[in-house]
Amino acid sequence: MSIEHLLRKRRAEHLDILCKLLEIPSVSADPARQSEVVRCAEQVEALARRCGLETRILATGGHPAVAAWRRRRPDRSTVLIYGHYDVQPEAPVELWTSPPFQPAVRDGKLFARGATDDKGQFLPHLLAVQTLLEAEEELPGNVVFLIEGEEEIGSPHLRATLEREAEMLRADLLLVSDGSLFAPGIPSLVYGMRGACFVQVDLEGPDAGWQLARMVAGLKSETATILVDGFYTDVEPADPLEYAHLPDEPERLRCELGVPGLHGEPGYSQLQQRTVRPTLEVNGFLVEGPRAMVKLTCRLVPRQDPRTVVRQLRDRLEELAPPGLRLEMVSRAGGRPWVTPQDHPALRAAGRALTRAYGRAPVMLREGGTIPIVADFQQLLGLPPILAGFGLTTDNLHAPDEHIHLENYFQAISAAVELQRDLSTIL
Amino acid sequence: MSIEHLLRKRRAEHLDILCKLLEIPSVSADPARQSEVVRCAEQVEALARRCGLETRILATGGHPAVAAWRRRRPDRSTVLIYGHYDVQPEAPVELWTSPPFQPAVRDGKLFARGATDDKGQFLPHLLAVQTLLEAEEELPGNVVFLIEGEEEIGSPHLRATLEREAEMLRADLLLVSDGSLFAPGIPSLVYGMRGACFVQVDLEGPDAGWQLARMVAGLKSETATILVDGFYTDVEPADPLEYAHLPDEPERLRCELGVPGLHGEPGYSQLQQRTVRPTLEVNGFLVEGPRAMVKLTCRLVPRQDPRTVVRQLRDRLEELAPPGLRLEMVSRAGGRPWVTPQDHPALRAAGRALTRAYGRAPVMLREGGTIPIVADFQQLLGLPPILAGFGLTTDNLHAPDEHIHLENYFQAISAAVELQRDLSTIL
Repeated sequence: MSIEHLLRKRRAEHLDILCKLLEIPSVSADPARQSEVVRCAEQVEALARRCGLETRILATGGHPAVAAWRRRRPDRSTVLIYGHYDVQPEAPVELWTSPPFQPAVRDGKLFARGATDDKGQFLPHLLAVQTLLEAEEELPGNVVFLIEGEEEIGSPHLRATLEREAEMLRADLLLVSDGSLFAPGIPSLVYGMRGACFVQVDLEGPDAGWQLARMVAGLKSETATILVDGFYTDVEPADPLEYAHLPDEPERLRCELGVPGLHGEPGYSQLQQRTVRPTLEVNGFLVEGPRAMVKLTCRLVPRQDPRTVVRQLRDRLEELAPPGLRLEMVSRAGGRPWVTPQDHPALRAAGRALTRAYGRAPVMLREGGTIPIVADFQQLLGLPPILAGFGLTTDNLHAPDEHIHLENYFQAISAAVELQRDLSTIL
Repeated sequence: MSIEHLLRKRRAEHLDILCKLLEIPSVSADPARQSEVVRCAEQVEALARRCGLETRILATGGHPAVAAWRRRRPDRSTVLIYGHYDVQPEAPVELWTSPPFQPAVRDGKLFARGATDDKGQFLPHLLAVQTLLEAEEELPGNVVFLIEGEEEIGSPHLRATLEREAEMLRADLLLVSDGSLFAPGIPSLVYGMRGACFVQVDLEGPDAGWQLARMVAGLKSETATILVDGFYTDVEPADPLEYAHLPDEPERLRCELGVPGLHGEPGYSQLQQRTVRPTLEVNGFLVEGPRAMVKLTCRLVPRQDPRTVVRQLRDRLEELAPPGLRLEMVSRAGGRPWVTPQDHPALRAAGRALTRAYGRAPVMLREGGTIPIVADFQQLLGLPPILAGFGLTTDNLHAPDEHIHLENYFQAISAAVELQRDLSTIL
């Protein structure tokens, strides 16, 4: 039976499997749901086994992770698929149209907490394994799954798990099944993300509010150049051709933000500024009597090191601080920036697979945000990461009435089949 | 019987009168206490009548004010005494040692809401009238009282009342019975206060937090010079002799503020900077996504006009605003600055009276804060204002366990007698 035929035939079953997973309130942030989280891990493991994989539950020190693998093609490449079975808390529950852990279909969408983040996105990869084995008896390549239970609380034990299980997790690329399509029907492949670091500055003394504003103003020029010694030293120059295939859409962005105009770093498009250029932003500012506080975030690009930038920023802030006021700083190096070269075989192979699955080439881009664990995979396991999402940014992830379009869910299984085919030949 | 003897004899009665007033919860901010506020006005009126004054309750459109007067000495000057019978809300009531409206004496202090702000401070002036009439049958001069019921909610109807009742309120000076001694046993006379104006700036668009910090930084130089066109044009030059008699206490101020050091406008002492120099301060700063907001206050000195400064400041902020971000401003002209000349006969007379009452000369100073209504009296009635307080800054006004030292209360009645004597001869 052809894959296409099989997938059509199994639709009801595939929907049912997702609903069963969505019924478990695996809220990692809620200590009262500890046993539900464990039950969800066990169900994911059982499911992976039924799909034809060997499995192991990994004790992490926190919520368990599920590992699952099938390595029967030593001549072929191995893809490591990362996802998470834990979900965001459902509050405020009164804003849900139907109960968050009772999956309900309305208007072609399946509503439940975790529908798109991330149960409905890692499950297609497992079902693709099952489908391929049923239709073709063996997979085109090798797969390893790591489905963790702590993504929504910042993955506190993931780095240690990666270090400990490096041998079991060895692969040729990392495929992250979290994110979204570029737009309905248009796939995307994300091959880079920015890193981050954070500094909170507390200033106390006469006129602290103005003094802190003056310090913050001194961190950038009017044309958005960051005035911190050494900040740009390790920044990779932007490749003018990188976004040549994508229209720069300042007008669309302007409308999305609802502002009268845009401005920024001269010589860089809006897309470049958002993805391949580092930034320094003010995320919070408070003044209360003789105390003032500001929260600063830097978004970092390859090859900036968050720890180095934190040091540079602290030095600059100390230099800008007025004498005679009490200065305190708390800083944190966030995730590292990463990029997978655009000509990497894995990226090209994934592009071909998605083109077949969606009938059009994916939009290739870097994201401006930060997912620290992706950089950890790259650093600790030496894997080039790729993000391919199957949901939509409008699916209310982290919000009431989270959902996934049924059409996107079923298409994701086809896409996952194609990805396994093409990603098996990148050696 | 001598005044001194009489005052000693009446102590229990004078304490009882204050306690009766303090038992009424005349919280002007609480609509549920409307009838208590009116009852307090009626009790103040009855009391003023018993003290030997003619009285009238003034309808204001809000809480009533009490007017009381005695004008039997056409050859002598008239003092207008301003106070307020309304009080701050008592919340958080659980932090009071004894119930806020059940006056209680502990350690020589009388605890109750309104003890020092302001029932215990205007009452001495009424009791001084009664005492003078009992001992000497007539007052040394003429007095008019205006005791309002809306001070703690910003005196919304006072200006209109002053305009309407200008004829009844005509006098030669304004004596404000609200404030504090300079220190225990050391009286003060305040002969000037700063004015104020306020601007709130909302900025929306990319990087609004940093952009607003940059705008705010551009309002002052590092040496605290305010970079707003025309801002200093009307500022009266500081008189280097004005504070020559007072030690500048930067170390004490530094300790009070709990900061490692002070700095500010070069060439001006800390006292001058706090009282006779204008300022621009940041009172609040918020950043949320693409929106940032700052609240700015200017303290103004004679002869700056708050409306003019608001215009100048708005012009400067527009000049500093980055193109392409949405800018909104809300501004308000607060109270006018005022100063009574240091050689004004009223000030010299009040100084003599307080010197006799306290056995030492009062500290003469200007305050850095703003009480808009004082400037209104000066502007609408043409009266030179003087502030003489009888409490202490440590009396917990506006806080739980508000109190007045009994000693300070009784001494205030003596001081009020002396003030009426000396202030009757300033023509």
